[in-house]
Amino acid sequence: MLNLRSDTDDAWLQVVDDHLDEILIDHAHCERKAAMAAMTLLTAYVENESLCLEMTTIVQEELEHFHMVRRLLDERGIVFRRQRQSSYGSRLHALVRRDDPQRAVDRLLVASLIEARSCERFSRLADHVQDEPLAAFYRGLFESEARHHTTYVRLAKDFAPDAEVELRLAELAVAEAEIIANGDGLARMHS
Amino acid sequence: MLNLRSDTDDAWLQVVDDHLDEILIDHAHCERKAAMAAMTLLTAYVENESLCLEMTTIVQEELEHFHMVRRLLDERGIVFRRQRQSSYGSRLHALVRRDDPQRAVDRLLVASLIEARSCERFSRLADHVQDEPLAAFYRGLFESEARHHTTYVRLAKDFAPDAEVELRLAELAVAEAEIIANGDGLARMHS
Repeated sequence: MLNLRSDTDDAWLQVVDDHLDEILIDHAHCERKAAMAAMTLLTAYVENESLCLEMTTIVQEELEHFHMVRRLLDERGIVFRRQRQSSYGSRLHALVRRDDPQRAVDRLLVASLIEARSCERFSRLADHVQDEPLAAFYRGLFESEARHHTTYVRLAKDFAPDAEVELRLAELAVAEAEIIANGDGLARMHS
Repeated sequence: MLNLRSDTDDAWLQVVDDHLDEILIDHAHCERKAAMAAMTLLTAYVENESLCLEMTTIVQEELEHFHMVRRLLDERGIVFRRQRQSSYGSRLHALVRRDDPQRAVDRLLVASLIEARSCERFSRLADHVQDEPLAAFYRGLFESEARHHTTYVRLAKDFAPDAEVELRLAELAVAEAEIIANGDGLARMHS
């Protein structure tokens, strides 16, 4: 369903156990960045009305999640702050082809894969963390991130034939699995 | 209430009468740009939780207005498209001082003045246009734009003493009145 080519391994769950505060802070930043990504796509493809409507929903949901994570940080006495970003996003964006419509397809598919990975990790976290309210929080986010993944893939098909989009998604999913496997030594949602 | 230093003159209303389609299309773009401006401020001052909450409300309302204008264009058979931007926004942003906290104050006050000018023009449009559904539409937007103006001014006061913010707002309002008076020969919401 999520089109990913790898499962998150136990080593990452160990990182979460060792650096939960950092992971939670990064999670808030991820939600904010996902909202900005949707806003940027709306700007880039503003003539596409159905894309604009979907991006509006995603912006609103991601900002809502951002504030949910912020409240969770407050409840736990964790001070929200800036952190060095993992290289995951920039490495994926580097794979985007230069000219439209290929560029549009790639930007939407990269967004779809980031949502898919978040979703896969929320699922693993929901099963792994011993802290029940936190596990419930992750379970609650799973469905919307899965829906965002599907939305981005569907929108990519506005810009190229279905088969071409599916092929490119498979290629990018292989690259995504390599990027996430390499990691970059930071405790982050995508590292 | 709106802190502006000039009233929109009848010459602009004549431009509206002569180029209503272009004005309506620009209006949609203005709403989208206002959403992006709020999103950008959220990103820039992400540690400020009350600012983030206010920006979230503004993003949501501006995107809602964007879609309202899009539907209005559809109803009138006007094709939404890209247009050359007026220089109003970039001229105002050029006045923003370089370093925080002055930079934060100026960015918020520039946003406040753009909202104020929109608000003032919606009010003039509501009284001027003969098309009653359109007049009602402009009246409906007046209140939220006025509220956004007030919100931005209040948030600027998180970054500098009240008196300093008021003084800077007065300075920028003088500059805004000059920029809007000079215009740039395009039929736009802010030209």
